[in-house]
Amino acid sequence: MERVRLFESTLAANDLQRLFHGVRSASEILAGPLSDADATVQSMPDASPAKWHLAHTTWFFEAMVLRPHLSGYLPYDAGFSFLFNSYYETLGARQPRPGRGMITRPSLSEILVYRKYVDAAVQKLLSTPIARDLAELVELGCHHEQQHQELLLTDILHLFAQNPLHPAYRDPAPIAVGMQASPPLSFISFDGGLHEVGHAGPGFAFDSEGPRHQAMIEPFRLADRLVTNGEWISFIEDGGYSNSLLWLSEGWARASADNWALPLYWEKRDGQYWTMTLRGFQPVNPTAPVAHVSYFEADAYATWAGKRLPTESEWEVATRGLDVDGNFLDTTRLRPEPARPRAGLQQMFGDVWEWTRSPFTPYPRFRAAEGAVGEYNGKFMSGQFVLRGGSCLTPPGHVRASYRNFFPGHARWQFSGLRLAEDI
Amino acid sequence: MERVRLFESTLAANDLQRLFHGVRSASEILAGPLSDADATVQSMPDASPAKWHLAHTTWFFEAMVLRPHLSGYLPYDAGFSFLFNSYYETLGARQPRPGRGMITRPSLSEILVYRKYVDAAVQKLLSTPIARDLAELVELGCHHEQQHQELLLTDILHLFAQNPLHPAYRDPAPIAVGMQASPPLSFISFDGGLHEVGHAGPGFAFDSEGPRHQAMIEPFRLADRLVTNGEWISFIEDGGYSNSLLWLSEGWARASADNWALPLYWEKRDGQYWTMTLRGFQPVNPTAPVAHVSYFEADAYATWAGKRLPTESEWEVATRGLDVDGNFLDTTRLRPEPARPRAGLQQMFGDVWEWTRSPFTPYPRFRAAEGAVGEYNGKFMSGQFVLRGGSCLTPPGHVRASYRNFFPGHARWQFSGLRLAEDI
Amino acid sequence: MERVRLFESTLAANDLQRLFHGVRSASEILAGPLSDADATVQSMPDASPAKWHLAHTTWFFEAMVLRPHLSGYLPYDAGFSFLFNSYYETLGARQPRPGRGMITRPSLSEILVYRKYVDAAVQKLLSTPIARDLAELVELGCHHEQQHQELLLTDILHLFAQNPLHPAYRDPAPIAVGMQASPPLSFISFDGGLHEVGHAGPGFAFDSEGPRHQAMIEPFRLADRLVTNGEWISFIEDGGYSNSLLWLSEGWARASADNWALPLYWEKRDGQYWTMTLRGFQPVNPTAPVAHVSYFEADAYATWAGKRLPTESEWEVATRGLDVDGNFLDTTRLRPEPARPRAGLQQMFGDVWEWTRSPFTPYPRFRAAEGAVGEYNGKFMSGQFVLRGGSCLTPPGHVRASYRNFFPGHARWQFSGLRLAEDI
Amino acid sequence: MERVRLFESTLAANDLQRLFHGVRSASEILAGPLSDADATVQSMPDASPAKWHLAHTTWFFEAMVLRPHLSGYLPYDAGFSFLFNSYYETLGARQPRPGRGMITRPSLSEILVYRKYVDAAVQKLLSTPIARDLAELVELGCHHEQQHQELLLTDILHLFAQNPLHPAYRDPAPIAVGMQASPPLSFISFDGGLHEVGHAGPGFAFDSEGPRHQAMIEPFRLADRLVTNGEWISFIEDGGYSNSLLWLSEGWARASADNWALPLYWEKRDGQYWTMTLRGFQPVNPTAPVAHVSYFEADAYATWAGKRLPTESEWEVATRGLDVDGNFLDTTRLRPEPARPRAGLQQMFGDVWEWTRSPFTPYPRFRAAEGAVGEYNGKFMSGQFVLRGGSCLTPPGHVRASYRNFFPGHARWQFSGLRLAEDI
Repeated sequence: MERVRLFESTLAANDLQRLFHGVRSASEILAGPLSDADATVQSMPDASPAKWHLAHTTWFFEAMVLRPHLSGYLPYDAGFSFLFNSYYETLGARQPRPGRGMITRPSLSEILVYRKYVDAAVQKLLSTPIARDLAELVELGCHHEQQHQELLLTDILHLFAQNPLHPAYRDPAPIAVGMQASPPLSFISFDGGLHEVGHAGPGFAFDSEGPRHQAMIEPFRLADRLVTNGEWISFIEDGGYSNSLLWLSEGWARASADNWALPLYWEKRDGQYWTMTLRGFQPVNPTAPVAHVSYFEADAYATWAGKRLPTESEWEVATRGLDVDGNFLDTTRLRPEPARPRAGLQQMFGDVWEWTRSPFTPYPRFRAAEGAVGEYNGKFMSGQFVLRGGSCLTPPGHVRASYRNFFPGHARWQFSGLRLAEDI
Repeated sequence: MERVRLFESTLAANDLQRLFHGVRSASEILAGPLSDADATVQSMPDASPAKWHLAHTTWFFEAMVLRPHLSGYLPYDAGFSFLFNSYYETLGARQPRPGRGMITRPSLSEILVYRKYVDAAVQKLLSTPIARDLAELVELGCHHEQQHQELLLTDILHLFAQNPLHPAYRDPAPIAVGMQASPPLSFISFDGGLHEVGHAGPGFAFDSEGPRHQAMIEPFRLADRLVTNGEWISFIEDGGYSNSLLWLSEGWARASADNWALPLYWEKRDGQYWTMTLRGFQPVNPTAPVAHVSYFEADAYATWAGKRLPTESEWEVATRGLDVDGNFLDTTRLRPEPARPRAGLQQMFGDVWEWTRSPFTPYPRFRAAEGAVGEYNGKFMSGQFVLRGGSCLTPPGHVRASYRNFFPGHARWQFSGLRLAEDI
Repeated sequence: MERVRLFESTLAANDLQRLFHGVRSASEILAGPLSDADATVQSMPDASPAKWHLAHTTWFFEAMVLRPHLSGYLPYDAGFSFLFNSYYETLGARQPRPGRGMITRPSLSEILVYRKYVDAAVQKLLSTPIARDLAELVELGCHHEQQHQELLLTDILHLFAQNPLHPAYRDPAPIAVGMQASPPLSFISFDGGLHEVGHAGPGFAFDSEGPRHQAMIEPFRLADRLVTNGEWISFIEDGGYSNSLLWLSEGWARASADNWALPLYWEKRDGQYWTMTLRGFQPVNPTAPVAHVSYFEADAYATWAGKRLPTESEWEVATRGLDVDGNFLDTTRLRPEPARPRAGLQQMFGDVWEWTRSPFTPYPRFRAAEGAVGEYNGKFMSGQFVLRGGSCLTPPGHVRASYRNFFPGHARWQFSGLRLAEDI
Repeated sequence: MERVRLFESTLAANDLQRLFHGVRSASEILAGPLSDADATVQSMPDASPAKWHLAHTTWFFEAMVLRPHLSGYLPYDAGFSFLFNSYYETLGARQPRPGRGMITRPSLSEILVYRKYVDAAVQKLLSTPIARDLAELVELGCHHEQQHQELLLTDILHLFAQNPLHPAYRDPAPIAVGMQASPPLSFISFDGGLHEVGHAGPGFAFDSEGPRHQAMIEPFRLADRLVTNGEWISFIEDGGYSNSLLWLSEGWARASADNWALPLYWEKRDGQYWTMTLRGFQPVNPTAPVAHVSYFEADAYATWAGKRLPTESEWEVATRGLDVDGNFLDTTRLRPEPARPRAGLQQMFGDVWEWTRSPFTPYPRFRAAEGAVGEYNGKFMSGQFVLRGGSCLTPPGHVRASYRNFFPGHARWQFSGLRLAEDI
């Protein structure tokens, strides 16, 4: 992905070094609880092994920054480019995605050595004055790695959920389930009209967040908080999963083929709902936001509730002026939290990614960059929906109001939930 | 699909009778060249047997008009609702779509008898004054049948293309291939700004064409004609089908899995391109518009050409004020025709449906109707792209500037082609 | 398939003409109740359209007899060899098997004209003295066509069973279901020792029926009649379909994947068992032999009953000296009949093919013939089980004691049933 | 699997303790070179993780020996029965086979602790006088574990072959490829007649090896050595993989679908054949026996060579009186070795398992045992072919002349090769 050319300034050299060091360390801390085996297995084609995430993000610096820009750089291992390239056709052949979990060697330890090797080289590069283009590439590599930090955790959760012993990534002690009711849902009104949306700078943004442009919006209302597990249980118990009239045709076909009857990771045991989490198997907390629902489920829920999902423009307009603050990865909760009983929009950032009804399409005048980074986002602009706001696994500092995450409508293994909207 | 409630008037009673009679007769004329076997076989799950089209459109009148509104109406056969319901969950169980081709009985002749029976009942109903709502349902049934007329022909073409003997639907004599060059491609500029789009009435429109609303558009240029077969051959011969960098990721995966190397129905024999048509196996005409390409191919072509596909709003704004005139089904050519060397936008209507880069999503404030007709369009609003303008198989009078056809990005068996656009 | 070279004589010229004429006419009589559409559709990859059977058996004479042996013979249509070759690699490319149902043209009428054309040429050939080798090829073609007569009917039954209207091939009037009990099952003992098995001549046999050889057999008992529907219902109602311990592992996997809970074509309605037949939807007759069960079901039944299936040698030894007499196609019942209350082995011929526990393997010293006929049987000698005795759809005169039919263990659409055996 | 009840004696108590200790230690030595990740990943549904093999064989002692027979035995972990039961329906639910590779926890280290725990309990049991039935169960457990030792290695080879870096299980140094020619192939004659086959005792055998019985055999010849890689290369280069006339129909379908053009693990680089081995990527040795070919390939080769595969009875008759001696696992070569230039049958034991043309069926009067061990072999008696003689990965002492290994005809990842036979 191209950095948006509009942004006014990049980080000072010191800040870039700090960012690089912080992001690289964070990945290793996240991998701390994992065994070599945990880090190696791929639990489905859409997921990748933790080891692969650690190595691929490293290869990204090697391929984009060190090879072209550090004179005399000797790649750590000639075979790694084949193993750890994700999807950059420009950068050569690669291990087929569904075979990422076959790579038992190199081991997790060796990948950590590979990281050190590359870190040292990047740090050497950063210790001298570098061109702004190159600094931007390093910064891109850091944001890229943050995306993979979140994926590493969602992929580990998916893996551990396949294990009938329900291992916990961390702290498996039972979590108290709040007995208090959720705050009542209320809707906040927003004006229609022409609004500017898209990244305006300063600061980093992915290419797909721009160009900034005017969007026409009709007056609308947005729910002040996310849909909760308790509300989702009402949908379940009202037959929401078996009433085809609530569903998009494509969603109904998928739900039927895969026997969806609950959110991913949920089980009903003796009349109680339980769910797999990074802290092991836990009771569902009715006041916390629902997670692990697909776009199709979210859309069916909204139809059932007599509402709809917001567009991404509506979401972005509503969030204007809010601090980017919420339950991100740094709270170490690793799960969505109930909303607090206070006025105004809550939970716009963190907790769960919010499905919007907007397909992921290019903004007006968008053009992918030349070269490998041009493959970052542009080629995924079909068959996906935009999600906004970040989740409890998103590294702090990573998202913004203009940030566009995207997944296919059937994806469920991310921390994806929803907020309702309606026309005025 | 709900009729858009905005439109000002419906047809006079005489006009409705004329419309009904004309549409119903046209279907039978189209089925004229088909044998019982031709009309029975289903060549792929996306296609339906001709007999099924003839019966399903009839069932539509029976289920939507006669049963609820003609007192004492006795359905022709109790089993037909199961056989000929398409996807209306509201209206009961039905034959699974991929099994439509198993129904060798009733025969084509009996389906024609079924049509006569229903026609007589509808005509009886129309011979008395009827409520406007009911008149609108009859009109809807006519437009619905016109959609199936086009599908009947594209499905027959797909079926005949599976037969190594290449049977012709009609007139298999060789078609002269024009030797003259295509007119040079030029681009016409359009202003940006807020534009009204969507159906404005008066007259019939499908629910998805409304509500009419304002859309913000950036200044753009639109090609004055469709992309030709000759231009597509340049794309082929420049390696367009094997250069992944031109393709959307989802498109590349599909193209690889299905070994796309030419438009659907094309073959290369002794260095010449041939294609299956409704008139049998014929040489490709380099000056005629390319057809039978998927969205993914169209998008890759546009990238290769340094352009892009238009949005549906751009297409609709550009077409404002043009007559709905072109190479439709009534020319009986059954194939796209070369553009003529004259100034201004050409081929906006007829010849081939034009892929736009717009996913098929609801317009602002769209709500599906209550009841069975509410399933007409709304539930298909994911995973599809909008096409505009009609084709050489579209019945005359069926399309409009606001008309939104839609198919998944990989669909190729319709008469789908493209027109280029670019930013200013 | 090679004619076994051991047999002493072939038919007299007159007899061969009579055989040819009789077999060819019989096929056309069987096709009599079928419409063009009935004869065109392929209901699953294992089945073929009736029209294809009629044309393929004709092509067999054209390819094996007329082209090589009738000087100046002009094939009816050059494209037919591609369309109607089944699996003879030696004889060139052909329509892929799952695409046989796409051939709506030529029509059934034209195929009947094709048959007349070829019949005339063969009759011309037979009106002159011909070499014994050639006479044997014609005889082979007749037996080949008889095999396809049975398949034509089982394939039509499969097709009609997909139609929710349950059309009847013939005479749909309800069939009285006998109220009398089945005769009690008894077992007849046979000595062990070395026994000669395999075709001994004179007369026609397929190559796989020889060479005749000695087989060592242990003393055994064989049930005097076939397993009945009533007995099968006991198996069903005792949980036979859900007790994995009764099943071969491969069978259990298939039964689970395909949700087998009843024989093919059976349905339970209001506590009664019904089944699709060539005479339409009918109640299951408890005293008639069970049909449409796979090898895996038959084996599970035998295990449940504390018995086993016979080997093909046991079956052949037991049948020695019996007349080849039973409920074949010429009774026109088109369904298996109850056994009569009389002593001795019954139902060894006709009614249903009997699964044996013998995989279809070559007899000692078997060698496939040179040339195309060598592909007839030999290449199918893996992954199949032998069935013996013929069925109610087998043309009279077609089977013998040494006759080896074969199908994969999961096949259910033939008239396949079982007879129990046990060790002494 | 039931121990064959015919055998005369079991091991003395001391010998049983020694056997148990030896087999259990051997598994752990084999696992020595594996990392936690190596031991966890499942490379295809037919393969299992090394960790699973180590745990399943341990569970076998727990479920069959300790739980029913050691009073007060406390299972190591209640969840392990679900995880490590293979296919014993009698013993409860279990992890679906294709999901065995999802179990990253317990780790390899913990599985080794589990093994110690169970070993101690079995040793305690064996330190007191035990009933003969129980002793037989322990002995069965040891032979069962030896089967899994071979599978552990073939599964690791399959896993490592998926890794583009070609890791070696052991000793990756290049292996010298013999330049000497293979000894010429000659055939040894054997008499026909009635022969006793099947296990005769004394000593252990699996239930499927009996009962001993008489088989009628025609005179035949058997090749004095295995087919070599060099001979296989002649088959390849003569177009053996693309000539459908050499193949069984089922084999041709599989070969086409999976693009077989070489034995599994082979690659051609710069005109030379290479193959993945447990010692890494190595040149193919033309004088060594070919391995990793399916039944279908072996059969096609034999047809090409104008010979056939032997039946299992022929193989067993020919091997009578030979010592069970050969290149087994204890040579630590881990690969097949060339035959030596000496007279008489060679390589009958060890090197590669030899495909026979015999489907795996029950011997006369075979009955599976009651209870869980009855599921050992009997339920696999369809859809598989018998292999004889053991391989370079078979533990010494494990096979016998009567030993019947079996795999589906398409299986290639075992050390499976062939020896030719012919009729006299």
